[in-house]
Amino acid sequence: MAVYTDVGDEEISAFIASYGLGEVVSFKGIAEGVENTNYLVETEQGWFILTLYEKRVNPAELPFFLSLMEHLAGSGLNCPTPVRDSEGCNLREIAGRPAALVTFLEGLSVRRPTADHCGEVGEALARMHIAAADFSLTRRNGLGIDDWRPLYERFAERADEIRGGLGAMIEAELAFLDARWPRDLPQGVIHADLFPDNVFFLHDQLSGLIDFYFACTDALAYDVAVCLNAWCFEADGQFNITKGRALLKGYDSVRQLSEAERAALPVLARGSALRFLLTRAYDWINTPPDALVKRKDPGEYARRLSFHQTIRSAREYGLDGTDRASAR
Amino acid sequence: MAVYTDVGDEEISAFIASYGLGEVVSFKGIAEGVENTNYLVETEQGWFILTLYEKRVNPAELPFFLSLMEHLAGSGLNCPTPVRDSEGCNLREIAGRPAALVTFLEGLSVRRPTADHCGEVGEALARMHIAAADFSLTRRNGLGIDDWRPLYERFAERADEIRGGLGAMIEAELAFLDARWPRDLPQGVIHADLFPDNVFFLHDQLSGLIDFYFACTDALAYDVAVCLNAWCFEADGQFNITKGRALLKGYDSVRQLSEAERAALPVLARGSALRFLLTRAYDWINTPPDALVKRKDPGEYARRLSFHQTIRSAREYGLDGTDRASAR
Repeated sequence: MAVYTDVGDEEISAFIASYGLGEVVSFKGIAEGVENTNYLVETEQGWFILTLYEKRVNPAELPFFLSLMEHLAGSGLNCPTPVRDSEGCNLREIAGRPAALVTFLEGLSVRRPTADHCGEVGEALARMHIAAADFSLTRRNGLGIDDWRPLYERFAERADEIRGGLGAMIEAELAFLDARWPRDLPQGVIHADLFPDNVFFLHDQLSGLIDFYFACTDALAYDVAVCLNAWCFEADGQFNITKGRALLKGYDSVRQLSEAERAALPVLARGSALRFLLTRAYDWINTPPDALVKRKDPGEYARRLSFHQTIRSAREYGLDGTDRASAR
Repeated sequence: MAVYTDVGDEEISAFIASYGLGEVVSFKGIAEGVENTNYLVETEQGWFILTLYEKRVNPAELPFFLSLMEHLAGSGLNCPTPVRDSEGCNLREIAGRPAALVTFLEGLSVRRPTADHCGEVGEALARMHIAAADFSLTRRNGLGIDDWRPLYERFAERADEIRGGLGAMIEAELAFLDARWPRDLPQGVIHADLFPDNVFFLHDQLSGLIDFYFACTDALAYDVAVCLNAWCFEADGQFNITKGRALLKGYDSVRQLSEAERAALPVLARGSALRFLLTRAYDWINTPPDALVKRKDPGEYARRLSFHQTIRSAREYGLDGTDRASAR
């Protein structure tokens, strides 16, 4: 939530000159993105976002993200489109950082999603999965099941500082998931971080998806499980089955979940809850309480994990139990 | 340089609804302003800046700042104009903070001003002084000469931690200024903080002045002295007389400096250098080195003060020595 790299007027003007978008008429650092620096740039041709990739980003992975956004936008998905300069480049450098200019997307992210919002997110996620089906690049999920144990081991000794028994809970869950994780589900490009702050709405219609910097190749249904965690729990920690039903119905209406994917949803939801529990716990331990970056409560995801541990079937998330193929 | 107060989509939509500007279509926290939270808001009718006034701002002074901006804009000066809601209010509340919506100004602030930029700033400053001449409110300068000693006393014991001898230098200067400060110069509304980051340029023309939150009633020529300090020194600490000449000539071409003002410039420049030395020294001592807010070097203003102490006449700043009235 900060501008990590400062860019001056001469730098930005020289940088923008090579895009053929006219001159820069305004330029503001925005408090968006935890990992990167973002500027809102107005040129004579409109508004754009300039992202400077900071140290935590692997530059070798940037072409994947930029090509993906370009591919998705080209397939009709509303997402930021990387702009190419006069030499055809969409990845350049400014102020010593790799940087890309992308189109500006209107819309607001919602703090309190309704079931209608959840339904639209489900549809948009499925549309993204389908749009990416013929995308040729792949990227390993750096926060997939094989990464969870090593990540846990980096703070295991201090896990119980967050909450008594947290270490044992994580240990048991890692063992469960190692044994039960479905490895043969349909794979593809997933967003992997489609939280409400990464989805824009305009006049209550979904207007776009942003922040593809966790996108990777993994089980498509895992992305659905991430969204169940990200969109369908209330502030009091309760799962809202109306929202779950709307999200799953929305997804299924665009890309039908297979029987194997339906059956796997509870374990995928457990894995997804554990993934966010682990990164939040790691950040909690490694972020000073008075840092400007607000620490997110790991306990929230411990509670979601506990909930998913009680789930026996995807019907409990609101998934319609009928076999749609035969119902037609 | 941060968003101190978080505003949600429902809050901003409800807030903007009462302005008759259509719906909010985009909303970004911007990394601008050290003391307040600023959001860039796009509505169906265009772009605006929403400022939330944080704890360091005295709410009782906000009507002065907002009325001043409205007055200046009404007089044709390019500056943010507070927007009034359907009830005629320009000062409202959001997220528990006093807040104002102002028009968005295009332009970029320059990092390395040229003499031409300095000339335009001089002209714009004089135009602001003239435009404010019939403004009816007044505000005491909270960082004027009478405030410097009390401010110094808050860190006097630690002044030499910044640089050996700094305490003695400040003490001597306070004594000098107490004895020599001109108290009978023409008064009016001054900007008091017209640094390069508060001036926008577009296609090398000055496009607007922003950030009137230090504006107050004081000697007009003191504002000129602030600008000499803020615009006419090079990165290596040298005064650039070409820039000084351009700035003073630009000012004088719009509002002619009186003989008394000309004679007072060196002492006003010393006072202005001391004012920024004092606030920077205070912030230096009270800001942890690892804070996200970048500390500004007090030494820079100690060196400027030393320079001004050698000045015997405003001619040494580049001010034309002829009596313009008789030259015409």
